[in-house]
Amino acid sequence: MRIIVTGGAGFLGTRVIELLLARANAGAAPIPFTEIVSLDLAPSRVEDDRVSSIVGDITDPELLRQAITADTVGIYHLAAVLSGGAESDFDLAMRVNVDGTRAILEAARAAGSTPRFVFTSSLAVFGRGVPAQVPESWAAQPESSYGMVKAIGELLVNEYSRKGFVDGRICRLPTISVRPGTPNSAASSFLSGIIREPLNGIAAGCPVPEDTPVWISSPDAAAQNLVHALGVDGQAIGGWRAMNIPGISVTVAEMLAGLERSAGAEVRALVTDAPEARVADIVCSWPGDFAVDRLLELGFVRDAGIDEIIAQYRAAFAPEPTGPAAQTPQSGTVAAPNQNGAGA
Amino acid sequence: MRIIVTGGAGFLGTRVIELLLARANAGAAPIPFTEIVSLDLAPSRVEDDRVSSIVGDITDPELLRQAITADTVGIYHLAAVLSGGAESDFDLAMRVNVDGTRAILEAARAAGSTPRFVFTSSLAVFGRGVPAQVPESWAAQPESSYGMVKAIGELLVNEYSRKGFVDGRICRLPTISVRPGTPNSAASSFLSGIIREPLNGIAAGCPVPEDTPVWISSPDAAAQNLVHALGVDGQAIGGWRAMNIPGISVTVAEMLAGLERSAGAEVRALVTDAPEARVADIVCSWPGDFAVDRLLELGFVRDAGIDEIIAQYRAAFAPEPTGPAAQTPQSGTVAAPNQNGAGA
Repeated sequence: MRIIVTGGAGFLGTRVIELLLARANAGAAPIPFTEIVSLDLAPSRVEDDRVSSIVGDITDPELLRQAITADTVGIYHLAAVLSGGAESDFDLAMRVNVDGTRAILEAARAAGSTPRFVFTSSLAVFGRGVPAQVPESWAAQPESSYGMVKAIGELLVNEYSRKGFVDGRICRLPTISVRPGTPNSAASSFLSGIIREPLNGIAAGCPVPEDTPVWISSPDAAAQNLVHALGVDGQAIGGWRAMNIPGISVTVAEMLAGLERSAGAEVRALVTDAPEARVADIVCSWPGDFAVDRLLELGFVRDAGIDEIIAQYRAAFAPEPTGPAAQTPQSGTVAAPNQNGAGA
Repeated sequence: MRIIVTGGAGFLGTRVIELLLARANAGAAPIPFTEIVSLDLAPSRVEDDRVSSIVGDITDPELLRQAITADTVGIYHLAAVLSGGAESDFDLAMRVNVDGTRAILEAARAAGSTPRFVFTSSLAVFGRGVPAQVPESWAAQPESSYGMVKAIGELLVNEYSRKGFVDGRICRLPTISVRPGTPNSAASSFLSGIIREPLNGIAAGCPVPEDTPVWISSPDAAAQNLVHALGVDGQAIGGWRAMNIPGISVTVAEMLAGLERSAGAEVRALVTDAPEARVADIVCSWPGDFAVDRLLELGFVRDAGIDEIIAQYRAAFAPEPTGPAAQTPQSGTVAAPNQNGAGA
């Protein structure tokens, strides 16, 4: 009984694999499984007898047929070109995020086991002009290539579910903050950078107005929700399988106030305004708040607040702020495109 | 200055070509053009020096490159597998409606002329649970394969417009009624059959409850709106290029009452209830009314009422009812799939 995780070597994929194993160890796996197969451009970093890696491209149908066998009970499809990369390379986004998703769905259909299929989508499927709090019935009218390819992925997963080819659970994730490590190709990467970089003593630029409302989730809450999505009853989700996964709504200014409460004014002062139209055009088109009561009733969770999100990051990755240091501001948005992870 | 019409040999394609020529003759073409090229599995039936035909499959990229040249100023993409055909052959719907639409968009992008691109979508992109009158911001959550492939087409045309590859105008057409001729593979084909067949003295079955509200447009109004869509200012449509094209909201019972007013009780009595779950499952998932004030302000039109729609059909195709005749009921839903036309 196999679970596939595309993007299994990425940040979120690694966390999902670790949490699935921990839950199974505690006798609380979301569904019974005996092995987890990571499918990514690099092998999984998780060391466990139940975890193996297939290294390759998710657009390769032959590789997918080998990976997705008749005993596959669950598939996490997390691999994607992220928002910044998609905006700068339209054809790559179409190939990886549309053709790749379709190839995986076809392999799942061919396997014949109607596996549960968790697909990470994004709030980027929405465009401007949304109400202050977005209801579940609001139209996906994306204003970015990333939002467009994710919206197409949603339609495919939903229809493959309606046809009985897979049992889909589409998770429109909030922006994940705080991610550890280095900036990625997501336009929203700065929403981790403006917390992470100052805590490491590095100056950071904020490319959007500080009053921009954003919808964020800690990595822990996102991983918990992805694991919960695998176990939840498909019928309970309803006929339309896309879910606006809970996050918290904060402004960038509130995030920076949280940073100051956590680490002091000097650390906070490392973040300065650095307007960047390319980033603001994408991120400011995304909604900052969603109606999620129904999903909370279905057992999905969200963070208590920005202070708890920052505390979670510091406990795991940055126990002591290193203090200000003179460095070039880093906007957190420039990085090579990659297929790992599922952030926007 | 070329205008391409895929599905140009079909019912709606023929009307669009004829209306474009008539408008040009009157000095009122929506955009200047010198030739119209029909691209379909059969040649166009329109005889005019300005009209030529390329016969072939819209999924053939080489053929599309030949058709869509650098002097292409407008493209009507009407060719599609219809709703009944899409529901029974998922892979054909993906190949023609998704891959075909993508191939045409890629050919338009390669041509480099940023042609105006009119794409016929459908109210089938919506699912159940919609409000009595659907607002423009309502989510496309299709419950049919046809609705899914059309929703994907919308996202593609919209994004290709945002990127400047084409100048898109997405027309979510109402169900076209009354179509002349024989039933097609659309699940909604009976919405023509229950008027057309009795007027020809043929019994017809009604596969859905008579209190089902439906959103319909005459062929004339639909063709006028498609021609108007080519000429309208793209910026006026807004950032999201999909439009719920005006129709009228009537119940099936109201359509049959109109038939009785037009042709008498004996003709009306030729329509009997013939519940058909396969058809009702699709058609009853579609909304029956839409908010269209903004589009009427943009110059789109709609029929005055069901009596005018029936009168239009009779004037063009059935001047005299032939009276009842003993025949096997014909539900109007059984026909070979075809790629022509743009009905749901």
